[in-house]
Amino acid sequence: MVKDKCQMENKKIDFSEWYNEIIDTAKLSDKRYNIKGMNVWLPYGLKIIHSIDSLLREYSDDGGIEEVSFPVLISREQLEVEFEHVKGFENEIYWVTKGGTTPLDIDLALRPTSEAAMYTMFPLWIRSHSDLPFRIYQIVNVYRYETKHTRSFIRVREIHFYEAHTAHVDFEDAEKQMDEYLKIMERLSDDLCIYFSMDIRPDWDKFPGAMYSVAFDTPMPGYRSLQIGTIHEYGENFAKNYGIKYLDENGDMKYVSQTTFGLSERLMAAVIGIHGDDKGLVLPYKLAPVQVIIVPIPSDNYDEIIEYSNGIKSKLMEIGIRCQIDNSDYTPGYKFNEWEMRGVPVRIEIGKREVNDKTLTISLRTRKKKIKIELEEISNMYQYLKEVNLDIKSKASEFYMANKVFIDSLEKIKEDKMVTAYWCGSKACSDEIESLSEKAALGAVRNDGTSGPCIVCGSPGKLSAFSRTY
Amino acid sequence: MVKDKCQMENKKIDFSEWYNEIIDTAKLSDKRYNIKGMNVWLPYGLKIIHSIDSLLREYSDDGGIEEVSFPVLISREQLEVEFEHVKGFENEIYWVTKGGTTPLDIDLALRPTSEAAMYTMFPLWIRSHSDLPFRIYQIVNVYRYETKHTRSFIRVREIHFYEAHTAHVDFEDAEKQMDEYLKIMERLSDDLCIYFSMDIRPDWDKFPGAMYSVAFDTPMPGYRSLQIGTIHEYGENFAKNYGIKYLDENGDMKYVSQTTFGLSERLMAAVIGIHGDDKGLVLPYKLAPVQVIIVPIPSDNYDEIIEYSNGIKSKLMEIGIRCQIDNSDYTPGYKFNEWEMRGVPVRIEIGKREVNDKTLTISLRTRKKKIKIELEEISNMYQYLKEVNLDIKSKASEFYMANKVFIDSLEKIKEDKMVTAYWCGSKACSDEIESLSEKAALGAVRNDGTSGPCIVCGSPGKLSAFSRTY
Repeated sequence: MVKDKCQMENKKIDFSEWYNEIIDTAKLSDKRYNIKGMNVWLPYGLKIIHSIDSLLREYSDDGGIEEVSFPVLISREQLEVEFEHVKGFENEIYWVTKGGTTPLDIDLALRPTSEAAMYTMFPLWIRSHSDLPFRIYQIVNVYRYETKHTRSFIRVREIHFYEAHTAHVDFEDAEKQMDEYLKIMERLSDDLCIYFSMDIRPDWDKFPGAMYSVAFDTPMPGYRSLQIGTIHEYGENFAKNYGIKYLDENGDMKYVSQTTFGLSERLMAAVIGIHGDDKGLVLPYKLAPVQVIIVPIPSDNYDEIIEYSNGIKSKLMEIGIRCQIDNSDYTPGYKFNEWEMRGVPVRIEIGKREVNDKTLTISLRTRKKKIKIELEEISNMYQYLKEVNLDIKSKASEFYMANKVFIDSLEKIKEDKMVTAYWCGSKACSDEIESLSEKAALGAVRNDGTSGPCIVCGSPGKLSAFSRTY
Repeated sequence: MVKDKCQMENKKIDFSEWYNEIIDTAKLSDKRYNIKGMNVWLPYGLKIIHSIDSLLREYSDDGGIEEVSFPVLISREQLEVEFEHVKGFENEIYWVTKGGTTPLDIDLALRPTSEAAMYTMFPLWIRSHSDLPFRIYQIVNVYRYETKHTRSFIRVREIHFYEAHTAHVDFEDAEKQMDEYLKIMERLSDDLCIYFSMDIRPDWDKFPGAMYSVAFDTPMPGYRSLQIGTIHEYGENFAKNYGIKYLDENGDMKYVSQTTFGLSERLMAAVIGIHGDDKGLVLPYKLAPVQVIIVPIPSDNYDEIIEYSNGIKSKLMEIGIRCQIDNSDYTPGYKFNEWEMRGVPVRIEIGKREVNDKTLTISLRTRKKKIKIELEEISNMYQYLKEVNLDIKSKASEFYMANKVFIDSLEKIKEDKMVTAYWCGSKACSDEIESLSEKAALGAVRNDGTSGPCIVCGSPGKLSAFSRTY
C-alpha cells in the first residue's frame, strides 16, 4: 500500500517529472539500487510486466513459436562469428573475465541480445526441410552498458526482453513470418491500447547484421517517440556465418533465411506514459494487477457491508477477475485516490444503501459519473472492464493522431511532434532535417504506397517518419 | 516431437546413464551449449520448471510473501559488507570487470545468491514495526563458477532459483517463519510426490553468514542424496552488517531478525530421478506439460475418430486440463512409447469401437491395465490424474523408506544408502564416518526428540542423517 497521498498534477507540464513520480508513487520499480540503470522490480510493477509476458506467451503459442531459455553468457568466440553484429554492440557489452579469483580463458559477455547464443545451437537442431520453419522465443533479461542517461523502463542497463527467432527454407517464407509478427503486434495494440507507426529503418540505423529492420514507434508525451519493438529480416547473413544449413527436398544443402522480433519493458513505459493522467496510472484491464477494487463505506452495519463485499469478491473471482477489498483504516476518499492512482479500471463502492437495495455503485477509472447496477448484473463485469479499455483506446488514438502529423514544408519540421513527410532516403537530407529539428529519420512508413517530392531536396521520396526519440 | 524410439532400460543398472539419456530423449535441456555447465532449457523442460514456479508463486502468495525481482549484478562493495558471506562464495563468483572496452571502477558479481543485493535495499523499505514482518521472494537465475563435475539440473553454473527473504521484529517471530516455510515444503512434497529428510546442518556446513541452516535431503537413485532446498535462520547477523533497523512500539531502534528459504531446479532433478522408470519420465499431473494425450487409432472411419477426439479434447480443456491429440503419421505403438517416455499421466485411445460405443479407453502411466469409461464420465478426468499421483507417491514413499535406513552399528555405515544414526555432533566422529563410507554428515534430523549413544564414540548423540551426496 502506498502511504502518501498522490499528487499527480503536472503530466501536461513536465512529462519527465510526472513519469518518474508515478513510478515511485505506484511502487512499480525502485531506482535506488546502487548500480546505475539497474532497478528493482517491485511487486506491483512486476505483476504488470508478467501480465504482458503472459499475453506474449499466448500470442507466441498461437503462432507456433515455442518458448526456450538460453544461458545469459556468450563467449567472445561465439559472439565474434558475425562481425557487423559484434561491432554494433562492442561498446555496450558487460564482460565477465574472472571466475572466482582466477582469470577466465575466454571472456564471457552478458547477452546484449541472443543471436550469437542461439545460432551456435541452430545447426544442431536444423538438419532438413522438415525441421523448418523453426520458431522459438525467450523472455529473459538482456544487458547493455548504457552510457546515455537512464530512465525506468525506457533506457536501463538490465532490460526485460522478449525475443523471437525463426529460420525458414527461403526468403519468401521468412517474409511471411514478418507478417505473423505484425499479427502479434496488432493483438498487443488491442490489449495494451497503444498505437504505433511501422517504420523501415534507414540502412545506417538497422540492426547490426540485418538485411533490413522495421521498428514500431509510438509518440509519447514529452514530444518524443519511443521505439517499442523491432522486427528484423536477416536473410542468409547469420546463417552463412554460423553455418545454419538444411537438406532441401531435392537433396541439396541450403542456408536458412532468418528473422527476429524483439520487444521489451518499453511496452510498459508506453502504457504508463500514454494512458496515465493527472490522477496517476490508467491500466488496460488485462494488465491491471487489481482489476476491480471494492471499497466498503463505513456505516453502522459495517459487518453486513463486509459480508456483502466478500460475496461480490467471490463471484468476481469465480469468473476470473482479479479483485480485492480495501478494508484498511483509511477514509473512503483516500482509498478512491489511492486506487485511481494505481490505475485500477473499476471501483465498486458498497455502503448501507447498496446492501439494502442489493445493488452496487460502480466507478470506471476513465469516467466521472458513477453507475448503479443490480447485484445480479455482476456477471457482466467484463463489460465494464472492456468499456474502460474502449475509453483508453479512444483517448490513445486521439493522442496518436494529434502527435503524429503529416507536413509538406520544411518550416513545419520544427513542430514539437512526430511528423511524416516525403523523403528521398539520403543521409544528407536526413542530416538537414536533424540539424533543423533534432528529429531523426525513423524511416519509410511500411505499407504506404504513396510517393512525393523529398521535403528537403525535391527528389522522388517515400512517406517517412521523423521524430525526437527517447 | 522426439523422433528416436526411446530405450530406457537401464535405470536400475546405471542411474547416471539413464538420467543423462532421459534428459536428451525427452528434450528437457540441451547441454551442448559451448559454456560448460550452462544448458539450454528446451520447450518441454521449460514448461515443467514453469509449472513448479507457478506452484511456488501460489504457495508464496498464500503465505503473504510478495514477488520482486532484483538486478543480477552486485557490486564488490555491497557483497563485502558481510565477511563470512562473501568468503563462502569467493571461489564461485563470476566477475564482470569490463563495460564495453573500458575497465569498470568496481567489479560486479553475477549474483551467487541475493542477500547482498536485497539487504542494501531493506533499510530503505523497513523503518518501523508496522513494516514487519517483511516478506519477499524472487525467481531468478543465480551463478556459480563450479569447478566440480556438472550434471543437468543437479550441478550447473546457471541455476534456476527461488529465494524468499524475510525480516521480523525478533528471533521468535523469525522462527515462526521457519514453520511457514515447512508448510510450503509440505505442499511441494504433496504436488511433486517427493519425500525428504529435514536436517540441521552441522556448523561447518551451514550457509555462510547463517545462525543455523536446515536442509531438505532426498535419497536419489545412485545411492546418493540430493539437497533440494534449504532454510536459514540469520538472526541479526546480516541486519547488523547492513544496518537493517526498525523503530519498535516503544520508540527504540532495533535490528530485525532474518530468514531465507531457497529452492532450485534440483526439484526437477528429484522428480525425474525418483519417479522415472525404464520407460522414461513419470510426471505428477501438476507438472506435466501434457496431462492427457489422445491417440486416435486408425480405422476406416478415421474422420469420425478425429472428430470424436476433438470433442473430448475440447471438454477436457474446458475443465482446465492440458490435453493434446497426437495425429502424427507414426503407429499407435510408437506413439504409446513416445508419450509414456515423456511422462504423460493419462493416455486416451480412441478407435472405431470407442466412437460407436460412446466410450473412451484410458491408460494410466503408472498401471498396466486399460480402463474403459463412458463418454459422460470424462468430467471425472481429474480423478484419474489424482490416481496417477497416488501411485507415484506410493512408489516414492517405498523408495524413500528403502533408501533411508536407521543403523545402530558402525559396520552398517557402508551400506549403499542414506542412513540415520545417533551422533554426538563432533567433527572427529563425522570424519571417521566419512573415511569409512564417503558419507557426509547431513546433520541432526529436525523435530526428532530421541537421543542415543554416538555410533562412533558412544557419547550422547542426536539422531542424524549421513549420505553420499550429489
